[in-house]
Amino acid sequence: MTYPNWLSQRAYLTGNQLALSFGKNEWTFSEVNELALDYAGKLAHFGITQHSRVALLSKSNAEAVFVIYGCMQIGCEMVMLNERLAGAELAYQLEDAGVDRVFADAELIEKVAGAQPVSFDELKLAKPAVFPLKTEWAKQQTISIMYTSGTTGNPKGVRQTAENHFSSAVSSALNLGVSPDDVWLCTVPLFHISGFSILMRSLVYGMGVRLYGKFDAAVCADELSKGQVTHSSMVGVMLEQVLREIEQRELRVSPRFKQILAGGGPVPVSYLQRAEAHGIQVLQTYGMTETSSQTTTLQTADAKTKLGSAGKPLFLYQVKIDGAQAAGEHGEILIRGPQVTPGYIGQFKDRPVLVDGWLATGDIGYLDAEGFLFVVDRRSDLIVSGGENVYPAEIEKVLMAHPAVREAGVCGMPDDRWGEVPAAFVVLDAGETAEQLPAFCRSQLAGYKVPKTFRVVGSLPRSASNKLLRRELKKWL
Amino acid sequence: MTYPNWLSQRAYLTGNQLALSFGKNEWTFSEVNELALDYAGKLAHFGITQHSRVALLSKSNAEAVFVIYGCMQIGCEMVMLNERLAGAELAYQLEDAGVDRVFADAELIEKVAGAQPVSFDELKLAKPAVFPLKTEWAKQQTISIMYTSGTTGNPKGVRQTAENHFSSAVSSALNLGVSPDDVWLCTVPLFHISGFSILMRSLVYGMGVRLYGKFDAAVCADELSKGQVTHSSMVGVMLEQVLREIEQRELRVSPRFKQILAGGGPVPVSYLQRAEAHGIQVLQTYGMTETSSQTTTLQTADAKTKLGSAGKPLFLYQVKIDGAQAAGEHGEILIRGPQVTPGYIGQFKDRPVLVDGWLATGDIGYLDAEGFLFVVDRRSDLIVSGGENVYPAEIEKVLMAHPAVREAGVCGMPDDRWGEVPAAFVVLDAGETAEQLPAFCRSQLAGYKVPKTFRVVGSLPRSASNKLLRRELKKWL
Repeated sequence: MTYPNWLSQRAYLTGNQLALSFGKNEWTFSEVNELALDYAGKLAHFGITQHSRVALLSKSNAEAVFVIYGCMQIGCEMVMLNERLAGAELAYQLEDAGVDRVFADAELIEKVAGAQPVSFDELKLAKPAVFPLKTEWAKQQTISIMYTSGTTGNPKGVRQTAENHFSSAVSSALNLGVSPDDVWLCTVPLFHISGFSILMRSLVYGMGVRLYGKFDAAVCADELSKGQVTHSSMVGVMLEQVLREIEQRELRVSPRFKQILAGGGPVPVSYLQRAEAHGIQVLQTYGMTETSSQTTTLQTADAKTKLGSAGKPLFLYQVKIDGAQAAGEHGEILIRGPQVTPGYIGQFKDRPVLVDGWLATGDIGYLDAEGFLFVVDRRSDLIVSGGENVYPAEIEKVLMAHPAVREAGVCGMPDDRWGEVPAAFVVLDAGETAEQLPAFCRSQLAGYKVPKTFRVVGSLPRSASNKLLRRELKKWL
Repeated sequence: MTYPNWLSQRAYLTGNQLALSFGKNEWTFSEVNELALDYAGKLAHFGITQHSRVALLSKSNAEAVFVIYGCMQIGCEMVMLNERLAGAELAYQLEDAGVDRVFADAELIEKVAGAQPVSFDELKLAKPAVFPLKTEWAKQQTISIMYTSGTTGNPKGVRQTAENHFSSAVSSALNLGVSPDDVWLCTVPLFHISGFSILMRSLVYGMGVRLYGKFDAAVCADELSKGQVTHSSMVGVMLEQVLREIEQRELRVSPRFKQILAGGGPVPVSYLQRAEAHGIQVLQTYGMTETSSQTTTLQTADAKTKLGSAGKPLFLYQVKIDGAQAAGEHGEILIRGPQVTPGYIGQFKDRPVLVDGWLATGDIGYLDAEGFLFVVDRRSDLIVSGGENVYPAEIEKVLMAHPAVREAGVCGMPDDRWGEVPAAFVVLDAGETAEQLPAFCRSQLAGYKVPKTFRVVGSLPRSASNKLLRRELKKWL
């Protein structure tokens, strides 16, 4: 129940192939493996072993990749911190995860100042210590941990094992196809599964990654036209901006470019049509942190007849609707397969992930007569804002902690740039105003989670059992 | 530790895609799945359950594929009988395997007359019985069993599990690449792992198979030029004949055609050069029944600088040389990975397959400084004749059973058509001649195993420990 060490195997099998590019620099798999071994020694210098759990806080850059691969060589667990989170949010994750060490990019280190972090600069200068090289990796070994919220509002740390990542990479290859000269354009964050899974595919396929620190539509449009990349991952709003660049500058998309994998909810049909006009295949996908990326994917050929569908499962996966007896019946979406996390860490470590072998996603959907999945309601009224998941309950919890707030409700509001942004409704104590709330939220929450509007209301819409009805809030907008 | 049922999953995900063609007929994955379910019911009619072991004796045709897929739907084990074997050889395998039923193609049924076989015609007419459909397949479930000889001369039944076949298909995809519109030309026997693995790749990839009853160089050359197929499996002698057809008829190989996977020993460089001139990539591969097809593969780009090499392992696999401390040292080739059989059945069922987790192949080889594998001596002086493995010990055992023979030694002899053919050296009792030996061998052995020459000698070359030195015999030719 092991894999050969992915990094050393890649260096052995396709050592001269492109593994990574960032800025003007490129590295082959042999070079990346050497750097990973060097970084593993540096991590060992700080006492990191295969039994350690570390947290990484970084922007997307080559050094972050080397630290990630160094951790894989050591065999430790990595908590991937979201650089956009507020200090309080990061502190919660570090405490919940009980990490042995925090390693942070110099630019971001202030955010985790309380956790005695080691900066990437300090790590880079460390004298490598000897460590036992793992020639094989256990399938059940946790590689990455990512925090995701849910109904509770308290983020849960999700384990992603070697088998989770491997299954995800292989299932994707069997669906999209794979070629030894594929290169994936990565402008999505490495701390999210969307970006991290690109690195995992790189190692499993021997595929190059062209990495960028952040998304820039003009740069992406250039990449698609230059012919160096074959794939990319985007959410709908990113795709639209790239298409606009291509159209305005009258660029020609290279015939070498194959596919865009689009997550974060259905892509409007007008985007699909514009993409098609430029020869770009867009595959819409449905997945989550707990499923280590894609679980279902909608083929380009089906996109127009199955508008709004998330497609069909990948080869190794199964999807069913809880309680549904026939096509079209709505219910909770259940997922089964080797991509599903074995569980959480920290305070949720005993919470079972599977019920009778199936992951209960909390999302509501249905399968049509041909077995295409339609997601009707994202779990916990999830707001997807520019590719980031925003959970209303988490924002409501912060608002409720403010002394002036009696009740709070948050829902998504349409936004041209981000797709959706959060909007807050609050019931205040007599004589109070909402004036202090934006600043209060900013001190507690990542910027993209801070509501763009705060409306003071007399009461919130609630069900008979007093449950907040967030869908009703949407109608008030 | 399960897979979704490959057949129903394929029908669900890519039901309208080509699964199989034979003669003028074509079937999609949905059609193949329906036929497999129908055949599973017919098998159930004959009492076959998931706990059964059946033997199949057939030429390569569509019906054989439906019976194989029907067995997979039932979940029984299939002993794949080689149609070229003599009756005595088949009887040995059936007895050793202790099969519940034998199903045979009408044309071949006489060969297994003693085993009360059910003909494919009878099976086809049977009224399907109800059987429990397996929606998931255990990874450790044995799908196929193939007999292979070795040092002992007694063929051993090798288990090939769902995981063995899946790992093999996925590792091959990660090496060669895979595309949703790939189609594999299959002219190698389905009862060998070379052909059976094409069916397994078909199900795992959703890939079409163009199946032929036998190899015909002219037909293959047509297929390569017509653009309907992307891949094929051949041994060197087949490749040469196809190249000759292409050259003589001045055919143009379709740009859609990608790769030929060439097993059965190194392909002469002149063939590689001729293939290259026609835009055909040839990937030489080393594998065996115990490794469910390819374990190492030599990339086309390396073929000229690494003449005679079997290449490097596929991503999930490891290869090492027993006892070797440095590059270039010779020793037994050891193999590790999820493609390696869990073991044998029948009289060899307790024989351990793995030593410390590694399969000892019996083959001698070395790894060069860059990790390329070179096979120096095939196990038991294996003779590869037109893609069939011929074990000298098995032929020697038959010869020794003849009353006139005192000692026998067999080795491979170069042959223009088959690559190699067996040659026998015998020490006879005084006054005897070799006259009766050809007919005697034909009554006991498949035609391709019958020596093409019988030389009477005074003694055989032996080592100090009296072990037959078959390599010395080669020098006598």
